[in-house]
Amino acid sequence: MRAAVFQKPGMIEVADRPDPTIVEPTDAVVRVALACVCGSDLWYYRGESEFEPGPIGHEFVGVVKDVGAEVDGVAKGDFVIAPFAFSDGTCPHCRHGITSACIAGGFFPANGDGGQGEAVRVPLADGTLVRVPGSGHSDEMMRSLVTLSDVMATGHHAALCARAKPGDTVAVVGDGAVGLCGVLAAKRLGAERIIALSRNPARQELAREFGATDILEQRGDEATEAVMSLTDGIGVDATLECVGTGQAMNTALSIARPGSMVGYVGVPHGVELPMGEMFLRNKGLLGGSAPVRAYIPELLDDVLDSRINPGRVLDFETDLEGIAEAYAAMDERRAIKSLVRVGAA
Amino acid sequence: MRAAVFQKPGMIEVADRPDPTIVEPTDAVVRVALACVCGSDLWYYRGESEFEPGPIGHEFVGVVKDVGAEVDGVAKGDFVIAPFAFSDGTCPHCRHGITSACIAGGFFPANGDGGQGEAVRVPLADGTLVRVPGSGHSDEMMRSLVTLSDVMATGHHAALCARAKPGDTVAVVGDGAVGLCGVLAAKRLGAERIIALSRNPARQELAREFGATDILEQRGDEATEAVMSLTDGIGVDATLECVGTGQAMNTALSIARPGSMVGYVGVPHGVELPMGEMFLRNKGLLGGSAPVRAYIPELLDDVLDSRINPGRVLDFETDLEGIAEAYAAMDERRAIKSLVRVGAA
Repeated sequence: MRAAVFQKPGMIEVADRPDPTIVEPTDAVVRVALACVCGSDLWYYRGESEFEPGPIGHEFVGVVKDVGAEVDGVAKGDFVIAPFAFSDGTCPHCRHGITSACIAGGFFPANGDGGQGEAVRVPLADGTLVRVPGSGHSDEMMRSLVTLSDVMATGHHAALCARAKPGDTVAVVGDGAVGLCGVLAAKRLGAERIIALSRNPARQELAREFGATDILEQRGDEATEAVMSLTDGIGVDATLECVGTGQAMNTALSIARPGSMVGYVGVPHGVELPMGEMFLRNKGLLGGSAPVRAYIPELLDDVLDSRINPGRVLDFETDLEGIAEAYAAMDERRAIKSLVRVGAA
Repeated sequence: MRAAVFQKPGMIEVADRPDPTIVEPTDAVVRVALACVCGSDLWYYRGESEFEPGPIGHEFVGVVKDVGAEVDGVAKGDFVIAPFAFSDGTCPHCRHGITSACIAGGFFPANGDGGQGEAVRVPLADGTLVRVPGSGHSDEMMRSLVTLSDVMATGHHAALCARAKPGDTVAVVGDGAVGLCGVLAAKRLGAERIIALSRNPARQELAREFGATDILEQRGDEATEAVMSLTDGIGVDATLECVGTGQAMNTALSIARPGSMVGYVGVPHGVELPMGEMFLRNKGLLGGSAPVRAYIPELLDDVLDSRINPGRVLDFETDLEGIAEAYAAMDERRAIKSLVRVGAA
C-alpha cells in the first residue's frame, strides 16, 4: 500500500509500505477513506519534538476490510471512525472514561501503520472503532465525521475539563482547529457568551459561525486586560487552553475567574505554571490527551443530526500523494486544518 | 488588650495592644474565646516566608462585643465563628462560592488585629461571621467549632477540589491537622477507602478514628509504589495534598488515577508541576486558599449534631500568655495543633 512517511523535519514523503494484515484476533484492518493532518503533527514536522522516521498520522475514518476471530463489534464493510488512541474499553481507566490511558492501549501510528496511509491495522478493534450508522453520507458530513477522530473530541474534552456549563461565559485561547472546535463544544454545552482569541480573519469568521460572541485580537497581558474588561474585572467561568505554549497557558490562567478551571489540550511545550496565582485564586487545571473514544458516541449523534458541523475546520484538501502540501499549508498557516482524501468511503 | 505579636522567626511574644473599636459601620468587634495556631503560621515562625512583625493569628471563635450601624446579621452577645478571611458575601466571587477571593475582602491579621489576641475588629461582619446557635456547648464541641475557622473547612476544600464522592478510594498526603481533617472530610463525603500517609503513631491513630482504612508510612517513590500496590496499579479516585512541598505534590500527582483530581491546600513552597505526566495521564489540580465562609454552615450542622468531631486534632493547649509554647510544640512536632484559651465563651 501507499502511506505517508516522515523522513526528517520538513520532509514528508509517500512510500510503498507492507499491506497491514490481521495479527492478533482482536485486530481489524481498516481501509482509510479520509485522513487529516493534526496540529500536533506539526511539532515533529517543525523539528520541535523528537519523532522516529516512519509512518505518520492518527486521524482517520474508513471501511473495515478484515477482522480478527475475536472481533464482534464491527464487521467487514462497516464504515468506522478510529480515535487517535486505541483502547480495550474494559480496563479500569477505560471504565472511568479515560480511554486514552487504557492499560492495554496505545496511540497511532502503531505497528508500522499511521492514519495517513491506505490501510491501518487497528488493535483492540472492539474497544476502539465506532461504527457509523447509515450510508451515503454527504461529503460535508464525512468531513465532520473525520473530525471526531481527534479535533472535535479534543475541543469537547477541553470544554468538559473546563467545566463549561449552560449560561457560562467561556474563553477559548487558540484559534487552531482544536480551539475552534472548543468554541463549538462550549456552545454545544450551553455557554451563553464565548470569547475567542484570534487575529486571523478566516478563523474569526469560523469562530463566530461556531458560536463565539466576542473576538479579541490581543495577546499576552493585553489579552488578559481585554477579557477582564469584557467581564467587569471578574474573569470567565471556564477557560479552554488549546495551544500548549507558556504564553497561552499564562493567558488562560490569568483570565479564569477564582474557583474556575482551565481545560487544556494543547501539548505543553515550555509551560511553567504560576503556582502562587493558582493557589491564591483557586484556579484549577485539568486536561491532556483526550479520551476521544469515550466521547465519539454522543458527538456522533450530533453530527449525524446536523446539530454540529465541525468539518468546517477543514479548509484545505489534497489526495494522499499530495500530503506534503497538506503539512506545508498548515505549517505556513495557510490552512486551519488539512483533509487528505485517501480512498472511497 | 493583650495579644500575641510576632517579633522575628522563633520569637512570639504577648504584648499590650490597643483595644479594637468599630471604625466602619460594617465592622464588628469580637472578644476572642478560643484561638488556634495554624500550620501556615509555622512558615514565618520558622523564617521560611516573609512576614511583617506584628499581631498574628487567623483562627478564632468568640463573642460579639460591638457592631457597627450597618451590621444586622450578628448582634452583641452572639457566639460566632470567624473564617480566616473576611468577605462581603455579595461580590461576584463570593456569589460563586469563592469567599476567599472576595473583591472587598482580605485575610486576618487585619487592621492591627490577629486572631491570637483578646479581641479582633472584624470587617464586613455580616458577610464574614457565622452565628452559632444554642448555648452552653461542651468544651469538646467548642474545640470542634474553632476548627471551622480554618482546618476542618480547609480539609473539606481539599476533598471537594479532589472531587471525592461516595464509594471512592481517596488518598490523603499529609498528616497535619489539615490532612487529618481531609480524612474526616473524605469520609463525610462518602469515600469508601481512605489511604492516609503518616509515620507518626498518634496521627495514625487519629486518622483511623476519622475514617482512614489504610495507613502508609512510606514517602516519595516508595509511597507511590505502596499506593499503586494497594490499588491494583490503578491509583486513587481522589487525592488530597495537604502539605505544600514539592515532594508531597509529586507523590499526590503520581498516585492519582488518570482522569482524577488532586485537591491541594498546602501553601506551595518549591513546587514544580510535572506537566508531561499531568497531560499524558489527564491528572488535574484544583485548590488553594479555602473559601471557609462558604463551607461553615453545612459543616456547623454536622458539628452541632456531633456527626463530626474535628476538634480532636487539638492535642496541645495553653492560655494566651503561654502562646510561645503553642508555637514551639507544633514546630517541634510535639503537637498536631495547638489550642489557645483566650477568654470565656
